[in-house]
Amino acid sequence: MSLELVKQFIINKNNFVIATHYNPDADTIGSGLALYQALMSINKKAIVINKDKTPKDCQFMPFINEVYNIDILRELNFKREALIIVDCNSIKRLSQETHHQALLSNLPSCVIDHHEISDVFGDIRWIEPPIASTTMMIYKLIKSLDIEITKDIAICLYAGLCIDTGNFRHENTSTESLKIASDLVSKGIKPSKIYRELFESWSSSKFKLFKRVIKGIEEQNDIAIMTVTKDMLRDTGCDDDDAGNFVDFPKRTVYIKVSVLIKEISEDKYRISMRSKNGINVAAVASQYNGGG
Amino acid sequence: MSLELVKQFIINKNNFVIATHYNPDADTIGSGLALYQALMSINKKAIVINKDKTPKDCQFMPFINEVYNIDILRELNFKREALIIVDCNSIKRLSQETHHQALLSNLPSCVIDHHEISDVFGDIRWIEPPIASTTMMIYKLIKSLDIEITKDIAICLYAGLCIDTGNFRHENTSTESLKIASDLVSKGIKPSKIYRELFESWSSSKFKLFKRVIKGIEEQNDIAIMTVTKDMLRDTGCDDDDAGNFVDFPKRTVYIKVSVLIKEISEDKYRISMRSKNGINVAAVASQYNGGG
Repeated sequence: MSLELVKQFIINKNNFVIATHYNPDADTIGSGLALYQALMSINKKAIVINKDKTPKDCQFMPFINEVYNIDILRELNFKREALIIVDCNSIKRLSQETHHQALLSNLPSCVIDHHEISDVFGDIRWIEPPIASTTMMIYKLIKSLDIEITKDIAICLYAGLCIDTGNFRHENTSTESLKIASDLVSKGIKPSKIYRELFESWSSSKFKLFKRVIKGIEEQNDIAIMTVTKDMLRDTGCDDDDAGNFVDFPKRTVYIKVSVLIKEISEDKYRISMRSKNGINVAAVASQYNGGG
Repeated sequence: MSLELVKQFIINKNNFVIATHYNPDADTIGSGLALYQALMSINKKAIVINKDKTPKDCQFMPFINEVYNIDILRELNFKREALIIVDCNSIKRLSQETHHQALLSNLPSCVIDHHEISDVFGDIRWIEPPIASTTMMIYKLIKSLDIEITKDIAICLYAGLCIDTGNFRHENTSTESLKIASDLVSKGIKPSKIYRELFESWSSSKFKLFKRVIKGIEEQNDIAIMTVTKDMLRDTGCDDDDAGNFVDFPKRTVYIKVSVLIKEISEDKYRISMRSKNGINVAAVASQYNGGG
Protein backbone atom coordinates (compact mmCIF):
# COMPACT_ATOMS: atom_id res chain seq x y z
CA MET A 1 0.00 0.00 0.00
CA SER A 2 1.41 3.34 -1.06
CA LEU A 3 0.55 5.20 2.15
CA GLU A 4 2.45 2.55 4.13
CA LEU A 5 5.51 3.00 1.88
CA VAL A 6 5.40 6.78 2.33
CA LYS A 7 5.21 6.26 6.08
CA GLN A 8 8.28 4.02 6.06
CA PHE A 9 10.11 6.53 3.81
CA ILE A 10 9.51 9.21 6.44
CA ILE A 11 10.37 7.03 9.42
CA ASN A 12 13.67 5.91 7.85
CA LYS A 13 15.04 9.34 6.97
CA ASN A 14 15.78 12.56 8.83
CA ASN A 15 16.38 15.49 6.47
CA PHE A 16 13.64 16.27 3.99
CA VAL A 17 13.33 18.72 1.16
CA ILE A 18 9.58 19.25 0.69
CA ALA A 19 9.03 20.61 -2.80
CA THR A 20 5.82 22.37 -3.88
CA HIS A 21 4.87 22.95 -7.50
CA TYR A 22 5.68 26.16 -9.38
CA ASN A 23 2.92 28.73 -9.74
CA PRO A 24 1.84 27.50 -6.30
CA ASP A 25 -1.66 27.36 -4.85
CA ALA A 26 -3.09 26.78 -1.39
CA ASP A 27 -3.15 23.00 -1.84
CA THR A 28 0.57 22.60 -2.57
CA ILE A 29 1.63 25.24 -0.01
CA GLY A 30 -0.83 23.94 2.61
CA SER A 31 0.40 20.38 2.05
CA GLY A 32 4.04 21.45 2.28
CA LEU A 33 3.58 23.48 5.45
CA ALA A 34 1.42 20.88 7.20
CA LEU A 35 3.95 18.15 6.45
CA TYR A 36 6.78 20.46 7.52
CA GLN A 37 5.15 21.04 10.92
CA ALA A 38 4.38 17.35 11.36
CA LEU A 39 7.97 16.34 10.60
CA MET A 40 9.41 18.99 12.91
CA SER A 41 7.15 17.74 15.73
CA ILE A 42 8.82 14.31 15.57
CA ASN A 43 12.30 15.85 15.50
CA LYS A 44 12.97 15.45 11.81
CA LYS A 45 14.51 18.30 9.81
CA ALA A 46 12.72 19.73 6.80
CA ILE A 47 12.66 22.66 4.43
CA VAL A 48 9.78 23.71 2.16
CA ILE A 49 10.77 25.11 -1.22
CA ASN A 50 9.14 26.67 -4.26
CA LYS A 51 10.43 28.22 -7.47
CA ASP A 52 7.99 31.14 -7.36
CA LYS A 53 6.83 33.55 -4.70
CA THR A 54 3.97 32.38 -2.50
CA PRO A 55 0.64 33.82 -3.60
CA LYS A 56 -1.24 36.48 -1.64
CA ASP A 57 -4.07 34.14 -0.69
CA CYS A 58 -1.63 31.86 1.19
CA GLN A 59 -0.06 34.59 3.32
CA PHE A 60 -2.36 33.82 6.27
CA MET A 61 -1.01 30.30 6.68
CA PRO A 62 1.06 29.54 9.79
CA PHE A 63 4.80 29.22 9.00
CA ILE A 64 4.30 30.80 5.54
CA ASN A 65 7.71 32.45 5.95
CA GLU A 66 9.23 28.98 6.11
CA VAL A 67 8.61 28.51 2.37
CA TYR A 68 11.95 29.28 0.71
CA ASN A 69 12.95 29.94 -2.84
CA ILE A 70 14.48 26.81 -4.34
CA ASP A 71 17.78 28.68 -4.95
CA ILE A 72 18.40 28.75 -1.21
CA LEU A 73 19.34 25.08 -1.41
CA ARG A 74 22.69 26.07 -2.98
CA GLU A 75 23.57 28.46 -0.15
CA LEU A 76 21.98 26.87 2.86
CA ASN A 77 23.80 24.33 4.99
CA PHE A 78 20.92 21.87 4.73
CA LYS A 79 21.65 18.18 4.32
CA ARG A 80 19.60 17.05 1.34
CA GLU A 81 18.80 13.48 2.29
CA ALA A 82 15.37 12.90 0.80
CA LEU A 83 12.84 14.66 -1.42
CA ILE A 84 9.07 14.72 -0.95
CA ILE A 85 7.09 16.42 -3.68
CA VAL A 86 3.52 17.40 -2.90
CA ASP A 87 0.55 18.13 -5.18
CA CYS A 88 2.41 17.21 -8.39
CA ASN A 89 4.10 14.10 -9.68
CA SER A 90 6.84 15.30 -12.02
CA ILE A 91 10.13 17.04 -11.32
CA LYS A 92 9.32 19.36 -14.22
CA ARG A 93 6.38 20.71 -12.20
CA LEU A 94 8.83 21.87 -9.51
CA SER A 95 10.78 23.97 -11.96
CA GLN A 96 11.34 23.87 -15.68
CA GLU A 97 14.90 25.04 -15.23
CA THR A 98 17.45 22.23 -15.44
CA HIS A 99 19.74 23.68 -12.76
CA HIS A 100 16.84 23.48 -10.30
CA GLN A 101 16.03 19.94 -11.37
CA ALA A 102 19.71 18.99 -10.92
CA LEU A 103 19.56 20.08 -7.27
CA LEU A 104 16.85 17.51 -6.53
CA SER A 105 16.89 14.76 -9.12
CA ASN A 106 19.44 12.50 -7.44
CA LEU A 107 17.75 12.29 -4.05
CA PRO A 108 15.67 9.37 -2.81
CA SER A 109 12.21 10.65 -3.65
CA CYS A 110 8.60 10.32 -2.67
CA VAL A 111 5.59 11.70 -4.55
CA ILE A 112 2.29 12.56 -2.82
CA ASP A 113 -0.33 13.79 -5.25
CA HIS A 114 -4.00 13.66 -6.22
CA HIS A 115 -3.51 14.57 -9.90
CA GLU A 116 -3.63 12.20 -12.84
CA ILE A 117 -0.19 10.73 -13.51
CA SER A 118 1.88 12.76 -15.96
CA ASP A 119 5.35 11.34 -15.34
CA VAL A 120 7.07 8.30 -13.80
CA PHE A 121 9.20 10.32 -11.40
CA GLY A 122 9.69 9.18 -7.80
CA ASP A 123 11.02 6.11 -5.95
CA ILE A 124 7.82 5.97 -3.95
CA ARG A 125 4.64 7.17 -5.56
CA TRP A 126 1.38 7.70 -3.70
CA ILE A 127 -0.99 9.10 -6.28
CA GLU A 128 -4.76 9.03 -5.82
CA PRO A 129 -6.63 11.14 -8.37
CA PRO A 130 -10.12 10.63 -6.91
CA ILE A 131 -9.07 12.40 -3.69
CA ALA A 132 -10.14 16.06 -3.72
CA SER A 133 -6.95 17.63 -2.39
CA THR A 134 -3.37 16.70 -1.56
CA THR A 135 -3.94 18.10 1.94
CA MET A 136 -6.47 15.27 2.47
CA MET A 137 -3.65 12.81 1.74
CA ILE A 138 -1.30 14.65 4.10
CA TYR A 139 -4.07 14.48 6.73
CA LYS A 140 -4.17 10.69 6.37
CA LEU A 141 -0.39 10.46 6.44
CA ILE A 142 -0.12 12.55 9.62
CA LYS A 143 -2.85 10.46 11.26
CA SER A 144 -1.13 7.21 10.27
CA LEU A 145 2.14 8.51 11.75
CA ASP A 146 0.27 9.14 15.03
CA ILE A 147 1.26 12.79 14.95
CA GLU A 148 -1.08 15.28 16.62
CA ILE A 149 -2.95 17.56 14.24
CA THR A 150 -2.44 20.94 15.86
CA LYS A 151 -4.55 23.99 15.09
CA ASP A 152 -1.76 25.37 12.86
CA ILE A 153 -1.51 22.12 10.91
CA ALA A 154 -5.32 22.05 10.60
CA ILE A 155 -5.36 25.56 9.08
CA CYS A 156 -2.92 24.50 6.35
CA LEU A 157 -4.79 21.26 5.62
CA TYR A 158 -8.22 22.93 5.55
CA ALA A 159 -6.95 25.65 3.20
CA GLY A 160 -5.89 23.11 0.57
CA LEU A 161 -9.14 21.20 0.89
CA CYS A 162 -11.11 24.43 0.67
CA ILE A 163 -9.34 25.75 -2.44
CA ASP A 164 -9.44 22.47 -4.35
CA THR A 165 -13.14 21.76 -3.71
CA GLY A 166 -14.10 25.43 -4.29
CA ASN A 167 -15.16 25.46 -0.62
CA PHE A 168 -17.13 22.21 -1.06
CA ARG A 169 -19.00 23.25 -4.18
CA HIS A 170 -17.13 21.25 -6.84
CA GLU A 171 -17.91 17.72 -7.92
CA ASN A 172 -14.98 16.30 -5.93
CA THR A 173 -16.76 17.16 -2.67
CA SER A 174 -17.36 13.82 -0.98
CA THR A 175 -18.37 12.21 2.29
CA GLU A 176 -14.66 11.88 3.06
CA SER A 177 -13.71 15.49 2.30
CA LEU A 178 -16.53 16.81 4.51
CA LYS A 179 -15.62 14.35 7.27
CA ILE A 180 -11.99 15.46 7.25
CA ALA A 181 -13.14 19.11 7.16
CA SER A 182 -15.30 18.42 10.23
CA ASP A 183 -12.37 16.88 12.10
CA LEU A 184 -10.09 19.81 11.17
CA VAL A 185 -12.67 22.31 12.46
CA SER A 186 -12.69 20.41 15.76
CA LYS A 187 -9.04 21.52 16.20
CA GLY A 188 -10.27 25.07 16.74
CA ILE A 189 -9.90 26.60 13.28
CA LYS A 190 -12.46 29.08 11.88
CA PRO A 191 -13.80 27.98 8.46
CA SER A 192 -15.31 31.41 7.76
CA LYS A 193 -11.95 33.10 8.34
CA ILE A 194 -10.09 30.69 6.07
CA TYR A 195 -12.79 31.11 3.41
CA ARG A 196 -12.39 34.87 3.57
CA GLU A 197 -8.62 34.68 3.24
CA LEU A 198 -8.85 32.39 0.22
CA PHE A 199 -11.84 33.79 -1.64
CA GLU A 200 -12.84 37.18 -0.26
CA SER A 201 -9.64 39.16 -0.01
CA TRP A 202 -10.00 41.10 -3.24
CA SER A 203 -8.08 44.36 -3.34
CA SER A 204 -9.69 47.60 -4.40
CA SER A 205 -7.79 47.22 -7.72
CA LYS A 206 -9.14 43.73 -8.31
CA PHE A 207 -12.71 44.88 -7.61
CA LYS A 208 -12.24 47.75 -10.11
CA LEU A 209 -10.96 45.30 -12.71
CA PHE A 210 -13.87 42.92 -12.02
CA LYS A 211 -16.42 45.68 -12.61
CA ARG A 212 -14.75 46.53 -15.93
CA VAL A 213 -14.49 42.92 -17.06
CA ILE A 214 -18.12 42.18 -16.15
CA LYS A 215 -19.27 45.32 -17.97
CA GLY A 216 -17.49 44.22 -21.15
CA ILE A 217 -18.68 40.60 -21.08
CA GLU A 218 -19.89 39.33 -24.44
CA GLU A 219 -22.46 36.58 -24.72
CA GLN A 220 -22.93 34.40 -27.77
CA ASN A 221 -25.80 32.03 -27.05
CA ASP A 222 -24.52 29.87 -24.20
CA ILE A 223 -20.91 31.12 -24.32
CA ALA A 224 -19.63 34.04 -22.25
CA ILE A 225 -16.43 35.77 -23.35
CA MET A 226 -14.45 38.09 -21.09
CA THR A 227 -11.41 40.10 -22.03
CA VAL A 228 -8.60 41.48 -19.89
CA THR A 229 -6.16 43.76 -21.69
CA LYS A 230 -2.82 45.05 -20.43
CA ASP A 231 -4.35 48.54 -20.48
CA MET A 232 -7.11 47.38 -18.13
CA LEU A 233 -4.53 45.94 -15.72
CA ARG A 234 -2.54 49.17 -15.82
CA ASP A 235 -5.59 51.44 -15.44
CA THR A 236 -6.87 49.55 -12.41
CA GLY A 237 -3.46 48.89 -10.87
CA CYS A 238 -3.81 45.12 -11.04
CA ASP A 239 -1.21 42.34 -10.96
CA ASP A 240 -0.99 39.88 -13.77
CA ASP A 241 -2.84 37.17 -11.80
CA ASP A 242 -5.64 39.30 -10.33
CA ALA A 243 -8.13 38.27 -13.02
CA GLY A 244 -7.47 34.57 -12.29
CA ASN A 245 -10.86 33.31 -11.18
CA PHE A 246 -13.14 35.76 -13.03
CA VAL A 247 -13.69 33.04 -15.63
CA ASP A 248 -15.78 31.08 -13.11
CA PHE A 249 -18.25 33.90 -12.72
CA PRO A 250 -20.68 33.43 -15.65
CA LYS A 251 -21.13 29.78 -14.60
CA ARG A 252 -23.55 30.90 -11.93
CA THR A 253 -26.20 31.40 -14.59
CA VAL A 254 -28.33 28.51 -15.83
CA TYR A 255 -27.85 29.32 -19.52
CA ILE A 256 -24.07 29.92 -19.89
CA LYS A 257 -22.40 26.57 -20.58
CA VAL A 258 -18.91 27.72 -21.52
CA SER A 259 -17.00 30.68 -20.12
CA VAL A 260 -13.86 32.05 -21.77
CA LEU A 261 -11.36 34.57 -20.44
CA ILE A 262 -8.95 36.12 -22.93
CA LYS A 263 -5.98 37.78 -21.28
CA GLU A 264 -3.50 39.91 -23.18
CA ILE A 265 0.05 38.85 -22.26
CA SER A 266 1.96 40.96 -24.77
CA GLU A 267 1.22 42.73 -28.06
CA ASP A 268 0.53 39.56 -30.06
CA LYS A 269 0.21 36.98 -27.29
CA TYR A 270 -2.95 36.02 -25.41
CA ARG A 271 -3.67 33.48 -22.70
CA ILE A 272 -7.08 31.85 -22.86
CA SER A 273 -8.81 30.25 -19.85
CA MET A 274 -11.96 28.20 -20.31
CA ARG A 275 -14.54 26.73 -17.96
CA SER A 276 -17.53 24.61 -18.80
CA LYS A 277 -20.35 22.73 -17.16
CA ASN A 278 -22.74 19.89 -17.98
CA GLY A 279 -19.82 17.72 -19.13
CA ILE A 280 -18.71 19.95 -22.03
CA ASN A 281 -15.04 19.07 -22.60
CA VAL A 282 -13.12 22.34 -22.96
CA ALA A 283 -9.89 20.48 -22.08
CA ALA A 284 -10.12 18.79 -25.49
CA VAL A 285 -10.25 22.20 -27.17
CA ALA A 286 -7.39 23.49 -25.01
CA SER A 287 -5.16 20.49 -25.72
CA GLN A 288 -5.30 21.22 -29.44
CA TYR A 289 -3.53 24.48 -28.64
CA ASN A 290 -1.05 23.05 -26.11
CA GLY A 291 -3.31 23.89 -23.18
CA GLY A 292 -3.84 22.06 -19.90
CA GLY A 293 -6.82 20.14 -18.54
CA MET B 1 -34.79 17.65 27.03
CA SER B 2 -36.61 19.42 24.22
CA LEU B 3 -35.69 16.91 21.51
CA GLU B 4 -37.16 14.13 23.63
CA LEU B 5 -40.41 16.10 24.06
CA VAL B 6 -40.64 16.69 20.30
CA LYS B 7 -40.12 12.97 19.74
CA GLN B 8 -42.95 12.11 22.12
CA PHE B 9 -45.18 14.73 20.49
CA ILE B 10 -44.65 12.99 17.14
CA ILE B 11 -45.05 9.47 18.47
CA ASN B 12 -48.32 10.32 20.22
CA LYS B 13 -50.09 11.94 17.28
CA ASN B 14 -51.00 10.97 13.74
CA ASN B 15 -52.06 13.95 11.63
CA PHE B 16 -49.62 16.81 11.37
CA VAL B 17 -49.78 20.22 9.78
CA ILE B 18 -46.14 21.17 9.12
CA ALA B 19 -46.00 24.94 8.73
CA THR B 20 -43.09 26.77 7.13
CA HIS B 21 -42.47 30.51 7.50
CA TYR B 22 -43.76 33.07 4.99
CA ASN B 23 -41.30 34.38 2.41
CA PRO B 24 -39.83 30.86 2.57
CA ASP B 25 -36.23 29.80 2.03
CA ALA B 26 -34.48 26.48 1.53
CA ASP B 27 -34.10 25.89 5.27
CA THR B 28 -37.79 26.12 6.13
CA ILE B 29 -38.91 24.27 2.98
CA GLY B 30 -36.13 21.64 3.30
CA SER B 31 -37.05 21.11 6.97
CA GLY B 32 -40.74 20.81 6.15
CA LEU B 33 -40.25 18.35 3.29
CA ALA B 34 -37.69 16.20 5.15
CA LEU B 35 -39.99 15.94 8.16
CA TYR B 36 -42.96 15.24 5.86
CA GLN B 37 -41.14 12.31 4.25
CA ALA B 38 -39.95 10.97 7.59
CA LEU B 39 -43.49 11.07 9.04
CA MET B 40 -45.00 9.42 5.97
CA SER B 41 -42.42 6.62 6.22
CA ILE B 42 -43.75 5.68 9.67
CA ASN B 43 -47.36 5.82 8.47
CA LYS B 44 -48.27 9.17 9.94
CA LYS B 45 -50.24 11.68 7.88
CA ALA B 46 -48.83 15.14 7.20
CA ILE B 47 -49.26 18.21 5.04
CA VAL B 48 -46.68 20.95 4.46
CA ILE B 49 -48.05 24.47 4.13
CA ASN B 50 -46.84 27.95 3.34
CA LYS B 51 -48.52 31.30 2.86
CA ASP B 52 -46.39 32.24 -0.16
CA LYS B 53 -45.29 30.46 -3.30
CA THR B 54 -42.16 28.32 -3.01
CA PRO B 55 -39.07 30.11 -4.32
CA LYS B 56 -37.33 29.13 -7.56
CA ASP B 57 -34.20 27.87 -5.81
CA CYS B 58 -36.25 25.23 -3.95
CA GLN B 59 -37.91 23.74 -7.04
CA PHE B 60 -35.34 20.93 -7.29
CA MET B 61 -36.29 19.47 -3.93
CA PRO B 62 -38.02 16.09 -3.88
CA PHE B 63 -41.74 16.39 -3.09
CA ILE B 64 -41.70 20.16 -3.66
CA ASN B 65 -45.22 19.88 -5.12
CA GLU B 66 -46.35 18.64 -1.73
CA VAL B 67 -45.98 22.14 -0.29
CA TYR B 68 -49.49 23.61 -0.31
CA ASN B 69 -50.84 27.09 0.10
CA ILE B 70 -52.16 27.55 3.62
CA ASP B 71 -55.65 28.31 2.24
CA ILE B 72 -56.00 24.67 1.18
CA LEU B 73 -56.57 23.77 4.83
CA ARG B 74 -60.10 25.19 4.54
CA GLU B 75 -61.00 23.05 1.56
CA LEU B 76 -59.05 19.88 2.14
CA ASN B 77 -60.42 16.99 4.12
CA PHE B 78 -57.33 16.85 6.33
CA LYS B 79 -57.71 16.19 10.02
CA ARG B 80 -55.81 18.93 11.79
CA GLU B 81 -54.59 17.14 14.89
CA ALA B 82 -51.26 18.78 15.60
CA LEU B 83 -49.10 21.64 14.35
CA ILE B 84 -45.32 21.59 13.88
CA ILE B 85 -43.73 24.88 12.86
CA VAL B 86 -40.23 24.74 11.43
CA ASP B 87 -37.53 27.42 11.14
CA CYS B 88 -39.54 30.06 13.03
CA ASN B 89 -41.01 30.29 16.49
CA SER B 90 -44.02 32.57 16.20
CA ILE B 91 -47.40 32.02 14.60
CA LYS B 92 -47.05 35.52 13.11
CA ARG B 93 -44.12 34.25 11.02
CA LEU B 94 -46.46 31.75 9.36
CA SER B 95 -48.78 34.45 8.16
CA GLN B 96 -49.63 37.93 9.36
CA GLU B 97 -53.25 37.45 8.36
CA THR B 98 -55.50 36.64 11.30
CA HIS B 99 -57.73 34.23 9.36
CA HIS B 100 -54.63 32.10 8.65
CA GLN B 101 -53.55 32.26 12.27
CA ALA B 102 -57.06 31.21 13.33
CA LEU B 103 -56.74 28.01 11.28
CA LEU B 104 -53.75 26.88 13.33
CA SER B 105 -53.70 28.63 16.67
CA ASN B 106 -55.90 26.17 18.57
CA LEU B 107 -53.93 23.02 17.71
CA PRO B 108 -51.45 21.27 20.02
CA SER B 109 -48.25 22.76 18.75
CA CYS B 110 -44.55 22.11 18.53
CA VAL B 111 -41.85 24.59 17.51
CA ILE B 112 -38.53 23.48 15.94
CA ASP B 113 -36.23 26.41 15.23
CA HIS B 114 -32.67 27.68 15.36
CA HIS B 115 -33.50 31.39 15.53
CA GLU B 116 -33.39 33.58 18.61
CA ILE B 117 -36.71 33.49 20.43
CA SER B 118 -39.16 36.17 19.33
CA ASP B 119 -42.41 34.84 20.78
CA VAL B 120 -43.69 32.40 23.39
CA PHE B 121 -45.83 30.41 20.99
CA GLY B 122 -45.91 26.60 21.13
CA ASP B 123 -46.79 23.87 23.65
CA ILE B 124 -43.45 22.25 22.99
CA ARG B 125 -40.53 24.43 22.05
CA TRP B 126 -37.19 23.13 20.78
CA ILE B 127 -35.19 26.23 19.98
CA GLU B 128 -31.40 26.12 19.62
CA PRO B 129 -29.97 29.32 18.17
CA PRO B 130 -26.34 28.12 18.00
CA ILE B 131 -27.30 25.41 15.48
CA ALA B 132 -26.60 26.54 11.90
CA SER B 133 -29.83 25.36 10.27
CA THR B 134 -33.21 23.96 11.21
CA THR B 135 -32.53 21.03 8.87
CA MET B 136 -29.69 20.02 11.24
CA MET B 137 -32.29 19.79 14.01
CA ILE B 138 -34.64 17.79 11.77
CA TYR B 139 -31.66 15.49 11.00
CA LYS B 140 -31.21 14.84 14.73
CA LEU B 141 -34.94 14.33 15.21
CA ILE B 142 -35.18 11.81 12.36
CA LYS B 143 -32.14 9.95 13.70
CA SER B 144 -33.58 9.86 17.21
CA LEU B 145 -36.85 8.46 15.81
CA ASP B 146 -34.81 5.66 14.16
CA ILE B 147 -36.15 6.62 10.74
CA GLU B 148 -33.93 5.93 7.74
CA ILE B 149 -32.50 9.02 6.07
CA THR B 150 -33.21 8.32 2.41
CA LYS B 151 -31.48 10.10 -0.46
CA ASP B 152 -34.57 12.30 -0.95
CA ILE B 153 -34.63 13.28 2.72
CA ALA B 154 -30.86 13.94 2.58
CA ILE B 155 -31.30 16.35 -0.37
CA CYS B 156 -33.83 18.42 1.59
CA LEU B 157 -31.71 18.44 4.75
CA TYR B 158 -28.48 19.30 2.91
CA ALA B 159 -30.18 22.15 1.04
CA GLY B 160 -31.19 23.87 4.28
CA LEU B 161 -27.74 23.40 5.78
CA CYS B 162 -26.15 24.67 2.60
CA ILE B 163 -28.27 27.83 2.32
CA ASP B 164 -27.99 28.77 5.99
CA THR B 165 -24.20 28.36 6.20
CA GLY B 166 -23.66 29.98 2.77
CA ASN B 167 -22.32 26.59 1.66
CA PHE B 168 -20.07 26.35 4.74
CA ARG B 169 -18.58 29.81 4.48
CA HIS B 170 -20.44 31.63 7.25
CA GLU B 171 -19.40 31.80 10.88
CA ASN B 172 -21.99 29.22 11.91
CA THR B 173 -20.07 26.49 10.05
CA SER B 174 -19.00 24.04 12.73
CA THR B 175 -17.58 20.59 13.30
CA GLU B 176 -21.15 19.39 13.69
CA SER B 177 -22.53 20.99 10.52
CA LEU B 178 -19.71 19.51 8.42
CA LYS B 179 -20.14 16.12 10.09
CA ILE B 180 -23.85 16.06 9.31
CA ALA B 181 -23.09 17.24 5.75
CA SER B 182 -20.65 14.34 5.39
CA ASP B 183 -23.24 11.84 6.57
CA LEU B 184 -25.88 13.28 4.22
CA VAL B 185 -23.49 12.98 1.25
CA SER B 186 -23.00 9.30 2.16
CA LYS B 187 -26.70 8.80 1.25
CA GLY B 188 -25.81 9.37 -2.39
CA ILE B 189 -26.59 13.04 -2.87
CA LYS B 190 -24.41 15.32 -5.06
CA PRO B 191 -23.24 18.44 -3.16
CA SER B 192 -22.15 20.19 -6.39
CA LYS B 193 -25.60 19.73 -7.91
CA ILE B 194 -27.38 21.07 -4.82
CA TYR B 195 -24.95 24.01 -4.69
CA ARG B 196 -25.72 24.83 -8.31
CA GLU B 197 -29.47 24.71 -7.74
CA LEU B 198 -29.25 27.00 -4.74
CA PHE B 199 -26.56 29.47 -5.78
CA GLU B 200 -25.82 29.16 -9.50
CA SER B 201 -29.18 29.12 -11.22
CA TRP B 202 -29.29 32.76 -12.19
CA SER B 203 -31.55 33.52 -15.13
CA SER B 204 -30.40 35.59 -18.06
CA SER B 205 -32.50 38.45 -16.63
CA LYS B 206 -30.83 38.21 -13.24
CA PHE B 207 -27.37 38.25 -14.81
CA LYS B 208 -28.34 41.37 -16.82
CA LEU B 209 -29.57 43.05 -13.64
CA PHE B 210 -26.37 42.05 -11.80
CA LYS B 211 -24.20 43.65 -14.47
CA ARG B 212 -26.22 46.86 -14.21
CA VAL B 213 -26.16 46.95 -10.42
CA ILE B 214 -22.40 46.26 -10.27
CA LYS B 215 -21.75 48.98 -12.85
CA GLY B 216 -23.65 51.52 -10.75
CA ILE B 217 -22.09 50.59 -7.43
CA GLU B 218 -21.00 53.58 -5.36
CA GLU B 219 -18.19 53.39 -2.87
CA GLN B 220 -17.75 55.78 0.04
CA ASN B 221 -14.59 54.75 1.87
CA ASP B 222 -15.39 51.31 3.23
CA ILE B 223 -19.10 51.38 2.39
CA ALA B 224 -20.53 50.05 -0.89
CA ILE B 225 -23.97 51.23 -1.98
CA MET B 226 -26.00 49.49 -4.66
CA THR B 227 -29.31 50.60 -6.09
CA VAL B 228 -32.07 48.64 -7.77
CA THR B 229 -34.88 50.70 -9.25
CA LYS B 230 -38.23 49.49 -10.56
CA ASP B 231 -37.10 50.65 -14.01
CA MET B 232 -34.05 48.38 -13.81
CA LEU B 233 -36.25 45.42 -12.89
CA ARG B 234 -38.60 46.17 -15.78
CA ASP B 235 -35.79 46.75 -18.32
CA THR B 236 -34.06 43.48 -17.46
CA GLY B 237 -37.24 41.45 -16.98
CA CYS B 238 -36.51 40.64 -13.35
CA ASP B 239 -38.77 39.54 -10.52
CA ASP B 240 -38.95 41.53 -7.33
CA ASP B 241 -36.67 39.10 -5.46
CA ASP B 242 -33.99 38.59 -8.14
CA ALA B 243 -31.63 41.15 -6.59
CA GLY B 244 -31.83 39.37 -3.22
CA ASN B 245 -28.25 38.34 -2.59
CA PHE B 246 -26.40 41.01 -4.59
CA VAL B 247 -25.76 42.83 -1.31
CA ASP B 248 -23.28 40.11 -0.31
CA PHE B 249 -21.09 40.75 -3.31
CA PRO B 250 -18.89 43.69 -2.22
CA LYS B 251 -17.98 41.76 0.93
CA ARG B 252 -15.47 39.75 -1.08
CA THR B 253 -13.11 42.70 -1.01
CA VAL B 254 -10.79 43.36 1.91
CA TYR B 255 -11.66 47.04 2.20
CA ILE B 256 -15.48 47.15 2.02
CA LYS B 257 -16.84 46.73 5.56
CA VAL B 258 -20.50 47.56 5.01
CA SER B 259 -22.59 46.82 1.95
CA VAL B 260 -25.99 48.44 1.35
CA LEU B 261 -28.63 47.59 -1.24
CA ILE B 262 -31.39 50.13 -1.81
CA LYS B 263 -34.38 48.69 -3.63
CA GLU B 264 -37.23 50.83 -4.93
CA ILE B 265 -40.54 49.26 -3.90
CA SER B 266 -42.89 52.02 -5.06
CA GLU B 267 -42.65 55.70 -5.87
CA ASP B 268 -41.76 56.82 -2.36
CA LYS B 269 -40.93 53.51 -0.70
CA TYR B 270 -37.54 51.83 -0.54
CA ARG B 271 -36.32 48.63 1.06
CA ILE B 272 -32.77 48.70 2.40
CA SER B 273 -30.65 45.58 2.95
CA MET B 274 -27.34 45.81 4.78
CA ARG B 275 -24.43 43.43 5.32
CA SER B 276 -21.32 43.98 7.34
CA LYS B 277 -18.20 42.21 8.46
CA ASN B 278 -15.61 42.48 11.23
CA GLY B 279 -18.36 42.69 13.83
CA ILE B 280 -19.94 45.94 12.62
CA ASN B 281 -23.51 45.86 13.90
CA VAL B 282 -25.81 46.88 11.02
CA ALA B 283 -28.74 45.19 12.79
CA ALA B 284 -28.61 47.99 15.37
CA VAL B 285 -28.99 50.54 12.57
CA ALA B 286 -31.78 48.52 10.94
CA SER B 287 -33.73 48.12 14.19
CA GLN B 288 -33.98 51.91 14.52
CA TYR B 289 -36.03 51.84 11.33
CA ASN B 290 -38.15 48.78 12.20
CA GLY B 291 -35.77 46.42 10.40
CA GLY B 292 -34.80 42.85 11.18
CA GLY B 293 -31.54 41.34 12.40
